Amino acid sequence: MITSVPNIGVYRIVEKLVYYFGDRQTEGKAEMRDLLGGKGANLAEMCNLGLPVPHGFTISTEVCTYYYNNNKSLPEKLKLEIKKNIKKIENFTKMKFGSNSNPLLLSVRSGSRASMPGMMDTILNLGLNNEAVNGLAQSTKNERFAFDSYRRFIQMYSDVVLEIDNSLFEDALEDIKIENGYSEDTELTPQNLKDLTETYKKIVLNELNRPFPQDPSEQLWGAISAVFSSWMNNRAITYRKLNNLPSSWGTAVNIQSMVFGNMGEDCATGVAFTRNPNNGENIFYGEYLINAQGEDVVAGIRTPYPLSKDTEDDFTADKSLEVKMPKIYEELLECRSVLEKHYGDMQDIEFTVQDNKLFLLQTRNGKRTAEAAIKIAVDMVYEGKINTNDALIRVEPESLNQLLHPTLDNNAKSDFLIRGMPASPGAVSGKIVLESDDAVKLSAAGESVILVRLETSPEDISGMHAACGILTSRGGMTSHAAVVARGMGRACITGANQLRIDFENKIIFFGEKKIKPGTEITIDGSSGNVYLGQVPTVYPEMSESFVTLMKWADKLRRLKVRTNAETPNDAKTAIKFGAEGIGLCRTEHMFFDENRINVMRQMILAEDSNERENALDKLLPMQRKDFEDLFLIMKGLPVTIRLLDPPLHEFLPNNEKDMISLSTTTGISLEKIKEQSLKLHEANPMLGHRGCRLAVSYPEICEMQSKAIFEAAVNIQKKVNQKVNVEIMIPLASTSKEIDVCKEIIDKVASTITIKMKEKIDYLVGTMIELPRAALCADQLASSAEFFSFGTNDLTQTTFGISRDDIGNFLNKYLEDGIFQNDPFISIDKEAVGSLLKIGIKKGKETNKFLKLGVCGEHGGDPNSIEFFEEIGLDYISASPFRIPIARLAAAQSIIKKKN
Amino acid sequence: MITSVPNIGVYRIVEKLVYYFGDRQTEGKAEMRDLLGGKGANLAEMCNLGLPVPHGFTISTEVCTYYYNNNKSLPEKLKLEIKKNIKKIENFTKMKFGSNSNPLLLSVRSGSRASMPGMMDTILNLGLNNEAVNGLAQSTKNERFAFDSYRRFIQMYSDVVLEIDNSLFEDALEDIKIENGYSEDTELTPQNLKDLTETYKKIVLNELNRPFPQDPSEQLWGAISAVFSSWMNNRAITYRKLNNLPSSWGTAVNIQSMVFGNMGEDCATGVAFTRNPNNGENIFYGEYLINAQGEDVVAGIRTPYPLSKDTEDDFTADKSLEVKMPKIYEELLECRSVLEKHYGDMQDIEFTVQDNKLFLLQTRNGKRTAEAAIKIAVDMVYEGKINTNDALIRVEPESLNQLLHPTLDNNAKSDFLIRGMPASPGAVSGKIVLESDDAVKLSAAGESVILVRLETSPEDISGMHAACGILTSRGGMTSHAAVVARGMGRACITGANQLRIDFENKIIFFGEKKIKPGTEITIDGSSGNVYLGQVPTVYPEMSESFVTLMKWADKLRRLKVRTNAETPNDAKTAIKFGAEGIGLCRTEHMFFDENRINVMRQMILAEDSNERENALDKLLPMQRKDFEDLFLIMKGLPVTIRLLDPPLHEFLPNNEKDMISLSTTTGISLEKIKEQSLKLHEANPMLGHRGCRLAVSYPEICEMQSKAIFEAAVNIQKKVNQKVNVEIMIPLASTSKEIDVCKEIIDKVASTITIKMKEKIDYLVGTMIELPRAALCADQLASSAEFFSFGTNDLTQTTFGISRDDIGNFLNKYLEDGIFQNDPFISIDKEAVGSLLKIGIKKGKETNKFLKLGVCGEHGGDPNSIEFFEEIGLDYISASPFRIPIARLAAAQSIIKKKN
Repeated sequence: MITSVPNIGVYRIVEKLVYYFGDRQTEGKAEMRDLLGGKGANLAEMCNLGLPVPHGFTISTEVCTYYYNNNKSLPEKLKLEIKKNIKKIENFTKMKFGSNSNPLLLSVRSGSRASMPGMMDTILNLGLNNEAVNGLAQSTKNERFAFDSYRRFIQMYSDVVLEIDNSLFEDALEDIKIENGYSEDTELTPQNLKDLTETYKKIVLNELNRPFPQDPSEQLWGAISAVFSSWMNNRAITYRKLNNLPSSWGTAVNIQSMVFGNMGEDCATGVAFTRNPNNGENIFYGEYLINAQGEDVVAGIRTPYPLSKDTEDDFTADKSLEVKMPKIYEELLECRSVLEKHYGDMQDIEFTVQDNKLFLLQTRNGKRTAEAAIKIAVDMVYEGKINTNDALIRVEPESLNQLLHPTLDNNAKSDFLIRGMPASPGAVSGKIVLESDDAVKLSAAGESVILVRLETSPEDISGMHAACGILTSRGGMTSHAAVVARGMGRACITGANQLRIDFENKIIFFGEKKIKPGTEITIDGSSGNVYLGQVPTVYPEMSESFVTLMKWADKLRRLKVRTNAETPNDAKTAIKFGAEGIGLCRTEHMFFDENRINVMRQMILAEDSNERENALDKLLPMQRKDFEDLFLIMKGLPVTIRLLDPPLHEFLPNNEKDMISLSTTTGISLEKIKEQSLKLHEANPMLGHRGCRLAVSYPEICEMQSKAIFEAAVNIQKKVNQKVNVEIMIPLASTSKEIDVCKEIIDKVASTITIKMKEKIDYLVGTMIELPRAALCADQLASSAEFFSFGTNDLTQTTFGISRDDIGNFLNKYLEDGIFQNDPFISIDKEAVGSLLKIGIKKGKETNKFLKLGVCGEHGGDPNSIEFFEEIGLDYISASPFRIPIARLAAAQSIIKKKN
Repeated sequence: MITSVPNIGVYRIVEKLVYYFGDRQTEGKAEMRDLLGGKGANLAEMCNLGLPVPHGFTISTEVCTYYYNNNKSLPEKLKLEIKKNIKKIENFTKMKFGSNSNPLLLSVRSGSRASMPGMMDTILNLGLNNEAVNGLAQSTKNERFAFDSYRRFIQMYSDVVLEIDNSLFEDALEDIKIENGYSEDTELTPQNLKDLTETYKKIVLNELNRPFPQDPSEQLWGAISAVFSSWMNNRAITYRKLNNLPSSWGTAVNIQSMVFGNMGEDCATGVAFTRNPNNGENIFYGEYLINAQGEDVVAGIRTPYPLSKDTEDDFTADKSLEVKMPKIYEELLECRSVLEKHYGDMQDIEFTVQDNKLFLLQTRNGKRTAEAAIKIAVDMVYEGKINTNDALIRVEPESLNQLLHPTLDNNAKSDFLIRGMPASPGAVSGKIVLESDDAVKLSAAGESVILVRLETSPEDISGMHAACGILTSRGGMTSHAAVVARGMGRACITGANQLRIDFENKIIFFGEKKIKPGTEITIDGSSGNVYLGQVPTVYPEMSESFVTLMKWADKLRRLKVRTNAETPNDAKTAIKFGAEGIGLCRTEHMFFDENRINVMRQMILAEDSNERENALDKLLPMQRKDFEDLFLIMKGLPVTIRLLDPPLHEFLPNNEKDMISLSTTTGISLEKIKEQSLKLHEANPMLGHRGCRLAVSYPEICEMQSKAIFEAAVNIQKKVNQKVNVEIMIPLASTSKEIDVCKEIIDKVASTITIKMKEKIDYLVGTMIELPRAALCADQLASSAEFFSFGTNDLTQTTFGISRDDIGNFLNKYLEDGIFQNDPFISIDKEAVGSLLKIGIKKGKETNKFLKLGVCGEHGGDPNSIEFFEEIGLDYISASPFRIPIARLAAAQSIIKKKN
């Protein structure tokens, strides 16, 4: 078989399509994840470890590639291989696929390289037909089970493979329950279920004009194709886009002999985490249901019981697996220990108990909160299971965002509504929405929303992503809502059973309280509490594990981490989070203050440089105070101050009302204000009269700012007896001469102040490299600049010719169509913008090999970009205060990745 | 002596500061222009040719460099060298510098590498003092001449060296004339002149508190310093900026024994061009005055007589030099022949006749109109004086602009005012301004202005540059106004003696007619006629010489020359001017037509793609007709059509009134129009939703345009039985995928039409490279594009981060401060934008070595940029129709320059 690998176009011959697993015949292993998918590789690995896994086999991801390259067809050779492998299962299980008396039933599941929970299709109980269902009834001596299995199979297969509207089956089920006055599925008698299968088959006949397929091989072939097809369903595409997974990976298909947790009271099914995925505590954490199928637990339809006696509460007293099935519990504990030791990571296990016998259906690295990830990683280092590099690489830097999430302020007044399960931490406030679509719309409009549902399903992915929090009335800690929310870093409360939703009248009942959609509530995903209105929040203290991990990160990383900050508040936060200096202080932000903006405007409206200097004289003491505050907080760490950058019209009022008010306050005529506004108006302000172009036109501004900086530095040096470390940054230079013009002013001011105030000041003058020309002529700029700070925001704008403010009109389409792999303003474009950085560094160093190199702008806090910055050898990165820990960890990971 | 060369910083030891010229002692030659300046080198060369030149010496430009590097001081060694050289002059002239009885008088003149007429200072008659003036009177037996020379010297020296206000001397002269009732200077008696010298000396004493310097050596030293100083006066700086001459060249100083054209009736002075500088005709062309100093001719104060009898007219009958001084005329004709043969170019000669003896004071390549330049160059090839490459390189491509200047429409009604001398060709209309400052202001405000003056002086340079034409009442064809206007390509009429200006009352008399400043007039610099109001103009036929030169250019050049054109009119003009295809057809221009804009707006305001397609269906036949017209005109030459480029909001009305009108016409609600305008509004439209981003969002537009193109191509192919050669260009691509998206649509349309209309169409699909990313990722783009056209306008905008629309606020300051050497939108920035082109070409060719490479945008018509495009190996350039000849010539010159 020849298959082409998408996006690479290399053809290679694939010999083996199917890999068996079970006992000593296992052909796969954990390392074959790319070929067998995560689930397949882990099933094989568990077999290799001697753990109890139902026999089966995996169709490799290469077949998926073939499928999409060959007009959705499967290779002929596959049939033969599947036949051989089914034979092996039959030999082991002593059952026969297609037999009417002793039928071997199969599950057919997807499984790609990365976990995509619930995104793709699954089919259970495959192999049943009108004859075999009777054989199953006889062999299991459980007619009810047999027909329940059959009706479930028909429904699932019709939905997934035959693409018949699922609600037809749901309605039929509902009808039979109403007819008989049942409220639960469990009340259905064997005869009811028999009737239901007949009804289901009629639905299929009606819809397709042909009967439900009775040939198990035909069923199997259809199921395999359907699973491959589901790789490209909308849910899966959305999920991959959200998680940056490439379509080219493809999925594997796992075919496995069925085991049943729903054959009676000695059967059960459950989900276990080897440690607490919420906080990382080293306890056995999970849920199970007796006499149920696995889907019942995951879908959150019935509320399950805990595994360990320790984790029982009032509602679940004496209902834990430990109490109900002590032998199975012991076996499961043993599996937990084997798996964690083997994988060196917390595992998420699915298990089924059939006839008092334990089977493991799946193991995978468990999704967890950032808090848990850190605690588990650090604990495992102390337990000797992994080393510090393993620990560092295991925590997703972006996930630290969760830890920086606020918690409720204990001292604040709050209006408690109800309590649910604390499924994903974080305290957030938002307006209630009931539909995912509404969540997307409102959130796009800038609203903070909380998605409130009975339960969530994969269709809700985009709504959950848009919401800041999720609240469900059903489901447990491992329900779909909980798992996805934790993965996304969204606050989540599940199983809030005092929550009822009247969809018709659009009323939500919180206990007795009636509330309308759109009302603001606060949910605390760490406690499970729901409050009315907005409850004030505070930022959390960092855990001991967090501090330890960050210490390891700091020890390993080479890149210095600075912050973008203008206010004392931001500077203090950044220092708390470990910033090693200020990489970008945007001085213009200091002028937007209410007290200053009018002085700034007087400066802009000045008739001549005399008037302008008068206004600047008023601004000087204010700016000086700003810098004094920052220097004091930064205690000798480098502080990079960027000279005034935006075009002047940004400071002027942009409507008649504000213009009149400005005229009244300052006594400047309205005509004058309007005239000047018009004169300063620009077609493309991004590319206008800004940056150092202002300093060239109005040297007085540069002079005032230099004075403020140096006077502040001298004042602080004299006050605290510590050298101030200031780096003055010239924005938007495209030639070395622009830097020279500014540097001349700066040096002159510095020397005047040094002499006048009898105090030496150490300072550097450097430039932002934020225009392609600056990078391309970096050899020239480096002869004038002592440092470069790559302003990758503007550099991305000019390199792509895309304005950040205007990208909204087409970015989504570009991402959807795969024209852009990422939003280039979030993750740096390594090809073009990156190559300008490389050129800039190479040329800059040619002129000045001691050139200091940094980056400011959003990319400085993006882990993907940081990896690139490490690669090209920058000296420091600068990120917003709340992203400092992310940057520190990402910088450390970059070192590890570079080594590998 | 050690001197540093500015801008290079290399120090070298200079041994020789002064170079003698005269008879067989001459030390310089023409090739030493950089060292001796143009004037000095040519004086030496004339001596080498045995022509009659007053003896003298040149102080080299290296001394000027020393002067500016050493705080405006001169090297000590210079004094000694000057002394030695003066001795040589004394030996030859038998006069003595500083002698009271037989004084040697000197002229001191500047002379830099390039001619800068009238920009720097000159001092004549140096060496006179209270004693020597008497000696001179005796030795020349001409007291009047001696005192006239002395008073001229005092005035000139006081002005230039002592920096005393010149009007003090002018007033004193005026006073003495009024006292005696004289109207002309010539009426002054020897005694008057004696008195005047006394008055002048008192003025100096009053102003400086010290007497006028009497020591000739002190006078000389002061004069030399003053000439060096004048290199950096404002006039000179402005002139160099306008003509792109570097300050680092410095000037030489020429010191020469005086000869006098004003010692009596056997004396004369004049200016001669070896051919007619207006039209290039091979006649001896020039003017002279009997008994006058050279300055009198050049300054245009007295109206001079012609050299040849042939060129006499009614006013000058029998007053030519040929009639008045036939022997001198013969000698001059001989000099003309020697000089032209030697230099192989038309010469501009200054001569003086003293006591019936001819002296040449200067020769240089004569300034000329473009028409003359072409005729002279072509004629000289035929005369065997130069080869075709010499001819090609000699014509300034930019000057061809003059030939494309309109002439008056003979069939139009016109209101004749007066006639003057046809000093520089071209017919232009504009408002009358009397002051250079006003010309600059009004022209900056977008007005077309004509500068009307009695005469012009170097102070008027910026006003002349700002004006489209110059009209003076005084001066001849070689006056300052005439020479400068021809150099600048401005239309000019001089010596219009029926013109009078009443400055006080701001009235201009054209004969009897009184006209106010601000009135519009038309001047025809080819006939000398002045008309009231705006007279319609027509474009001229090309001369035979022009056609010949262009043929030589076409034979030599490698670069193909295409045009930017959308309209049939432009396309036809371009073909007439020699375009070899269309390099840029901006389809959006076709939508701004009154009949179409509303359909375009309906398309933009469409609710869905159905409505949009309806509007597009209406646009399709219009666009198809556009393309049919172009294909027909271009007769199989390549036609590059760019898909819709600007953001859609550019098509919407931008004020309430037009919006209401649109609403009425189309029935679309005003709210809808406003809402959509607001939605489409962009912060930086240059970097917004435009170019191929539109095609990605609205594939219907791309589809309609493709249809129009291919249907038009098929229609024309069937009609005229000639293959259409179409190249479809995708704008603003930054990734190869964008090209793929468009190409897929284009290819599909092409194949549908090919099948439907049973006609094969040859076409290429390529892209503009106008974003840094496109150039940096050109290897990827070249896998999708069949040609690249560098859009250097947008590439310059993004590389510099400068919006063309907004550069006005700071460009002048940037040019003044030398931050930019040129406006980067006029002449390509070779360093950064150029390096992106080089990267784009290299990477593009790596992927596709047959990639076709062109450039569109303004730089395609700029000679400087064209030289660069030849260097980097583009296949073609594209320029606006009227710049096609310029581009053809520049492309040929690039080949010659590359060889050298």
